[in-house]
Amino acid sequence: MRKFAAVDVGGTQIRVAIFNEDSSKPILEKKIKTQGDGQTPVERLVNVLKEVWPTDDPIDSIAIAAPGYLEPEEGLVVTAPNIPGWVNLPLAQILRDQFHVPVYLGNDANLAAMGEWKFGAGKGYKDLLFITVSTGIGGGIIMDNQLISGAHGMAGEIGHVVAVPDGPMCGCGKKGHIEAVASGTAIARYVREKLAEGVPSAFKPGSSPSAKEIADAAKKGDQLSIDAFNLAGFYLGRTIADFLHILNPAIVIMGGGVSMSGDLIMKPLMASLEEHVIAKEYVTNMRIVTAALGDDAGLLGAFALSLEK
Amino acid sequence: MRKFAAVDVGGTQIRVAIFNEDSSKPILEKKIKTQGDGQTPVERLVNVLKEVWPTDDPIDSIAIAAPGYLEPEEGLVVTAPNIPGWVNLPLAQILRDQFHVPVYLGNDANLAAMGEWKFGAGKGYKDLLFITVSTGIGGGIIMDNQLISGAHGMAGEIGHVVAVPDGPMCGCGKKGHIEAVASGTAIARYVREKLAEGVPSAFKPGSSPSAKEIADAAKKGDQLSIDAFNLAGFYLGRTIADFLHILNPAIVIMGGGVSMSGDLIMKPLMASLEEHVIAKEYVTNMRIVTAALGDDAGLLGAFALSLEK
Repeated sequence: MRKFAAVDVGGTQIRVAIFNEDSSKPILEKKIKTQGDGQTPVERLVNVLKEVWPTDDPIDSIAIAAPGYLEPEEGLVVTAPNIPGWVNLPLAQILRDQFHVPVYLGNDANLAAMGEWKFGAGKGYKDLLFITVSTGIGGGIIMDNQLISGAHGMAGEIGHVVAVPDGPMCGCGKKGHIEAVASGTAIARYVREKLAEGVPSAFKPGSSPSAKEIADAAKKGDQLSIDAFNLAGFYLGRTIADFLHILNPAIVIMGGGVSMSGDLIMKPLMASLEEHVIAKEYVTNMRIVTAALGDDAGLLGAFALSLEK
Repeated sequence: MRKFAAVDVGGTQIRVAIFNEDSSKPILEKKIKTQGDGQTPVERLVNVLKEVWPTDDPIDSIAIAAPGYLEPEEGLVVTAPNIPGWVNLPLAQILRDQFHVPVYLGNDANLAAMGEWKFGAGKGYKDLLFITVSTGIGGGIIMDNQLISGAHGMAGEIGHVVAVPDGPMCGCGKKGHIEAVASGTAIARYVREKLAEGVPSAFKPGSSPSAKEIADAAKKGDQLSIDAFNLAGFYLGRTIADFLHILNPAIVIMGGGVSMSGDLIMKPLMASLEEHVIAKEYVTNMRIVTAALGDDAGLLGAFALSLEK
């Protein structure tokens, strides 16, 4: 039985797992903090891989889901803003030198899309769009059963398209991106600003509730909180309509905390989507569903990448 | 030697050509009007194909570039607004019954992208975006040497993404699409509106110059005409930046009359593109060029489709 090592590196934790080729249930899994013990993140990653490395069967390959800008074909992390020292890091080469097996690298949101396609809500679909709406907005695109990674692995940055020209500043430094008007961060900022303006709400003037707290308040009828989700849903629907015109997927999979708030976000999103598509077939021939794999999407996507290689 | 029939159907003319598999120069070609002689467009298409049909070698297949919404896999024209009677037309089936060879169907702008990729400005690139800016804006996407047609052949409608929310009405009936603010039609409308407002220009107040006439006036220094192209270039650059974030192509090929106006459109476009990308690598690792095949792109794209099948 072929075995594979999968890795999901985030700003706060590193997850590693060993999979048999025939199951998406790992035979061994381990989580550690990305930083600590006076070690670099790379040292920590190498050490935790050594801990789970099987002594019986050989490992076929290692696949890594990593954040930031990568050159997947060169196995290079160009820059990962949340991980100290990860600038022009030849991560694949480093692991190849240590473990003497092929090493594959992919963007975490792109690989999450691949995870949902292979093992989750997108199973059986060949044209799929995955959108994760949480602190930020990211995603990945599968067309004709192939991950769209682009010429330099920088495709799928679907949070960084203009939704409101000259709108609020995005985390990336540009203005009015969909991430800047419809992410959890954007929802929280909208409510904070309206509270500061004196708009009445269940929240105290001057307070800074989280997107989760705003969702809870909305479900209890707080109008300001409902408005915040309506607005985010409107923008998401309009931008997803653009994506449908460009890509015409058979299924759109919504991941991330904001997507999990049910009708609160999905009702205004669907109304806006139907309003903005240029032909009803874009929506009538398409399903929109919530993600199935949660936090496991990246790790399972890395495993899926190994299987595809 | 294998031979292929290629067809490009437009609102005004139908072009057919016979190709040998080893050359993009047709061995026989014919153009006719789409309508006339009391025949339906389908009858005219069948007749002209019979005229060019070789008597020596057999034909391998027929490939058709057609406008409008198609279901390529079913060989169905769902609706082609410029061609009377083309609603839910089983075009592939009709031609199969007549000529007893496989028939492939593709959207004309998508196939033009394929033509440029196989025989034109995109030769040798595996990740390509083709944008045609003329009366309208259309295009096609090739990723990893595959045409992105989407689940129902409706991908690549890149003229119909929102550039200016609540902006001018688009030909499709929705507001503020890039086609509505940066096509030749949009450039002409902008100048017409400014002239009506009394903005001074080389054109007479109340006149309605074409995009071509505006380009000529701009080249002679007419400020209103220069402004119109600057604005269109700004919007195109911002929207193309979105496309780069989504798709990360290695090359962007600009076709259509507006793209052919040189620096007038390309200078503001490039400045806007550089301003709006979230990482310079999207532009520095990418080429942007004008199309090479002109009006032949659709026909050659249909031929390319046959070769790929």
